[in-house]
Amino acid sequence: MADEIKLERFKRALSESDFDVVVAVTPENSWYLSEAVIDTQRSLLERLALVVWAKGAEEPLYIVCTNEQVQARHDSWIKDIRGYVEYAQSPMQFLADALAELGATTARVGIEKHFLQTHYYEELKALVPKTRLDEVGEFFDRVRAIKTPDEVRRMEEAGVATDRAIRKAFEAARPGMTERQVGVMLTSELILNGAESQGFQVLAAGANTMMTHHRAGDYVLQSGDFMRTDFGGVFPGGYQSDLGRAVVIGKPSQRQLDTYSFIYGELEQMISELRPGVTPRELFLAHKSRWEAHGWPMPRPHIGHSIGIGIHEHPLIRPGDDSPLQPGMIICVEPAHTIPGIERYHMEDTVLVTEGEPRILSRFHNWSELLTPGA
Amino acid sequence: MADEIKLERFKRALSESDFDVVVAVTPENSWYLSEAVIDTQRSLLERLALVVWAKGAEEPLYIVCTNEQVQARHDSWIKDIRGYVEYAQSPMQFLADALAELGATTARVGIEKHFLQTHYYEELKALVPKTRLDEVGEFFDRVRAIKTPDEVRRMEEAGVATDRAIRKAFEAARPGMTERQVGVMLTSELILNGAESQGFQVLAAGANTMMTHHRAGDYVLQSGDFMRTDFGGVFPGGYQSDLGRAVVIGKPSQRQLDTYSFIYGELEQMISELRPGVTPRELFLAHKSRWEAHGWPMPRPHIGHSIGIGIHEHPLIRPGDDSPLQPGMIICVEPAHTIPGIERYHMEDTVLVTEGEPRILSRFHNWSELLTPGA
Repeated sequence: MADEIKLERFKRALSESDFDVVVAVTPENSWYLSEAVIDTQRSLLERLALVVWAKGAEEPLYIVCTNEQVQARHDSWIKDIRGYVEYAQSPMQFLADALAELGATTARVGIEKHFLQTHYYEELKALVPKTRLDEVGEFFDRVRAIKTPDEVRRMEEAGVATDRAIRKAFEAARPGMTERQVGVMLTSELILNGAESQGFQVLAAGANTMMTHHRAGDYVLQSGDFMRTDFGGVFPGGYQSDLGRAVVIGKPSQRQLDTYSFIYGELEQMISELRPGVTPRELFLAHKSRWEAHGWPMPRPHIGHSIGIGIHEHPLIRPGDDSPLQPGMIICVEPAHTIPGIERYHMEDTVLVTEGEPRILSRFHNWSELLTPGA
Repeated sequence: MADEIKLERFKRALSESDFDVVVAVTPENSWYLSEAVIDTQRSLLERLALVVWAKGAEEPLYIVCTNEQVQARHDSWIKDIRGYVEYAQSPMQFLADALAELGATTARVGIEKHFLQTHYYEELKALVPKTRLDEVGEFFDRVRAIKTPDEVRRMEEAGVATDRAIRKAFEAARPGMTERQVGVMLTSELILNGAESQGFQVLAAGANTMMTHHRAGDYVLQSGDFMRTDFGGVFPGGYQSDLGRAVVIGKPSQRQLDTYSFIYGELEQMISELRPGVTPRELFLAHKSRWEAHGWPMPRPHIGHSIGIGIHEHPLIRPGDDSPLQPGMIICVEPAHTIPGIERYHMEDTVLVTEGEPRILSRFHNWSELLTPGA
């Protein structure tokens, strides 16, 4: 059940690259190539799972900790899986042995230095002193930026499921509940809608919304409170969702209605601009100028990001990036505004760039009107 | 509300060490010193939050991404907090500037090379070429291995809450439910019992239990299924729980009763051996010899681990470690056994090493009898 389109494209990109061998080290790239989503790669960072792919090879080899070998064999399409015993054997020794087998000890090897821990890197350098070890992150970023049809389907399932989960929890929110109770509903609905785990959850009401990454706590919802979530799950294959949604509990003020309406309009505008050829810089500056024309400051370093197995993939929507968007990219855009001392607004959707109209992958419900549960 | 005992002990350890300055880079050490639990330190690894403490200084300084600065100011006791703008400014430049301010450019700086990404390390080396940058992980490990009274209280709250959550979900499990439904109950109960987020969740029934890290899925529980969870949450301060519990759905077989009973007895035995002066090697070999005397293989590289803000802290209970246990250590022990092709058993508790009797921190309920919901 491997995504053949993805693997063929990867092999072609590798054959056209300057690398003789590439080594996936991050969970994102390791999962992308192996299709085995091993959770401990995020929680136990020293327990590396490496995919080693030589130029011209039909298949890579896969180095995993023996603790995860059963799952790796079960989930991955890769046949050559090699298990190291943690604390007794080093994944760097296995990698060095693999490079020797591949005749690559004097080759140019791309490895993720932006992630690989310094102690592992120094060990590897000592094991293969003649190998040229270069950063390979951008190579993977470029390949992963364009999603295959199967990836688009997975991302849409993730986005729609997350939208349903948020709507259900928000519709049930009432004055007198705690943030924590709403947070638990969000998590439960997310899993029941198909997520394998929660990726992250910001859930805040009232003044707590001003904290970018507030965690649901014991605050009791008051009538008139603005409440927002920035929320996502990890779905099959490791694909992630990342949505921003907001409501007012009970009766909203005119200020809240107006603010929500302006930000929702801006979200729609940002989505409509996600077209092939436009650059992140142009998207950023267009948003910034509209924001400032409205009298709002826009001090943020970026206003969106690509997404897939990684929660922040490349490109980011920031002023320093002039590479044009391409069909097949999936981009989150997220306008945000703080009313100092009062509340912070943030909305976010996930959008596929196509040859034609941008396609929103994260809406089951219509959010154009401010939802007011308990009003 | 800073844990003064912890901070005083840390300052003393630093003054007695060979380091002029130490830099916390991992989420664990950064949270330990700052007391600000910034979730994105785990999900966005490039978004470093660094605590920089010079020998003899009363307080450290704290370098965080501006996205997290409001939370850092809210949660941390550290007054000197410096924000870098991500993608525009580098935390390594901020660190180099701080080292210059501290007059430490030719000093011996301890930094977590076992975690710091290679590209950051190479950038830092170029910025402070005369600074000696040495691994500091073991220094932090040794300090964190002995818990303060406040840490013990937090760990017991985490352990007891997790035990309650598991019992409640397991008592409600019935034939015909899916693993996923049980998994959602586990998560919800965990949060309602005080966890800030789920740390990890293995939940498996029947043959799925053979996978070490199986994720709850669509498998429908059958009467007679063995079901187990390896489960933990992240609690205030970032302190983690990690428990292993098991049940049989409906009527158990004699084999299941006998297997459970033997493993529970072994768990009690392992707990009783957690005393000052005993070494991990001795604990490991004692367990291994009992296991093999029972006719079971024991191929595992370790059978437990310390725990705190990190899920696997030092020491690990493995044959290669001869440093004796000390009072104030908190250790998880976890016997496990696979009946090939049938099911895998695993139980785990969290225990405080004291001058006297070991104190279990993870039991609200009595698990000595096999629980059989729906029997």
